[in-house]
Amino acid sequence: MLSKSVEQLIKSFTVLPGVGTKTAQRMVFYLLKRHRKAGCELANNLLHVMQNVGECEQCRCYSDDKICKICSDNFRDVTQVCIVESPADVFVIESSGGYRGKYFVLHGCVSPFDGIGIEDLKINLLLNQIKELKFDEVIIATNPTLEGEATGILIHEYLKPYNLKVTKIAHGVPFGSEIEYMDNSTIGRALMARTLITSE
Amino acid sequence: MLSKSVEQLIKSFTVLPGVGTKTAQRMVFYLLKRHRKAGCELANNLLHVMQNVGECEQCRCYSDDKICKICSDNFRDVTQVCIVESPADVFVIESSGGYRGKYFVLHGCVSPFDGIGIEDLKINLLLNQIKELKFDEVIIATNPTLEGEATGILIHEYLKPYNLKVTKIAHGVPFGSEIEYMDNSTIGRALMARTLITSE
Repeated sequence: MLSKSVEQLIKSFTVLPGVGTKTAQRMVFYLLKRHRKAGCELANNLLHVMQNVGECEQCRCYSDDKICKICSDNFRDVTQVCIVESPADVFVIESSGGYRGKYFVLHGCVSPFDGIGIEDLKINLLLNQIKELKFDEVIIATNPTLEGEATGILIHEYLKPYNLKVTKIAHGVPFGSEIEYMDNSTIGRALMARTLITSE
Repeated sequence: MLSKSVEQLIKSFTVLPGVGTKTAQRMVFYLLKRHRKAGCELANNLLHVMQNVGECEQCRCYSDDKICKICSDNFRDVTQVCIVESPADVFVIESSGGYRGKYFVLHGCVSPFDGIGIEDLKINLLLNQIKELKFDEVIIATNPTLEGEATGILIHEYLKPYNLKVTKIAHGVPFGSEIEYMDNSTIGRALMARTLITSE
C-alpha cells in the first residue's frame, strides 16, 4: 500500500462513532489536501483533552480542573441540583439557558443486564453533597427511557430520608413538533401529565 | 461553559467533512468516556501525518518518503502509467487489485471557473517522466464528470507528440447495479461503448 502512516491514520479515525473506512478516508484526504493546519490543531487539542480532562470532584462532569467551572461559580443557584445521565446532557441544558443551579452527572443509568447498579453511579457522592451543601430541590433529568426512569425512581427512594423537594423534568410533546407524528407513549404521557390553563 | 478545552476540541472536530457541532460533541464525549487511549493514538497519528506526509516526487501521491512505495517498487509494471485526479483514487485502484503499473496524481482537474488550468496539475512533471521512463501505455482514469473528461481530452492532446498508446478506463453500468435505476447518461454511454461478445 501507498503510505503506511496515512493508512494507520485512516484506521485510527474509524474509532469515532459513525465513521467507517470510507468516511475515515474522506476525512484524512480532506485534511491532507486542504486543512493541514486545522488538522494539527485538532490533533493537539485531542491529545490535550484525552490526557488532561477528568471528572469534577463535585458534579462528576468533565473538567479541566479538579472542580469544574460551574461548581466553582459563586453566582450559580446553590439551592438546586440537577441529576443527569451524561456530561453531554449538561452541555445541552447549559446551552438552553433555562437553568442556573448545580449538576450531578451519573455517567450512565441503572441497568441490571449490564450489571450497573445504583452504587456504580456514585450515588454516595451525591448524598454526601446533599448533606453538606443543603440543597432545597433535586431535579431528576434522566432520560425518559425504561432504564432512565428506573434510575430516577431509585434516586428518589434514596433521597426520601432527606426531606427534600424532588422534581423531574416534564415529559411530553417536544416544542415545534407535530402531534400527528408523535408516538403513542409520548402522547399518552403528555395527556396524563396535562396541566391546568390558568387565565392570569 | 463547562470545560474550555472540551469545547475547543468540539469546535476543532467540525473541520472534518460532514461533521457539525452535534456530531463533533458525540465524537468527543464518546472518546472521553470509552476510548481515551484510542483518542490519544488518533491524535498522535494525525499530527504525524499532517506534519510529515508529503507528495511523492514522481507520482505526486501522498507519501512518507520523497519517493512513494509504489514508485520505488521494482516489481511494478513500469510500462504503464495511470493518471488519476486524487490520491484517494490511487487507494481505490490499488485495493481493487486490478492494476500493477505506475500512477500519476493530478490533484484536481481542469476547471476554468476555479481558474485551474492544465499547468496547475503539473502536467510537465508527467511529460518529463514520459520522456525519461519510456511508458508504453498511458491510462487516463479521471472522473467521468465534465471537468474530468475535459482534463482527459487535454492530456491526450499533450501526449500526442510522444506516440504512446493512450487509453481511458471504461465508463458504463457499474457491476452489481440494476439497469432499471441507471441515469440516462450512464445508459447512453454504456450503449455507445458496447463491446462485441466473442465466443472463445
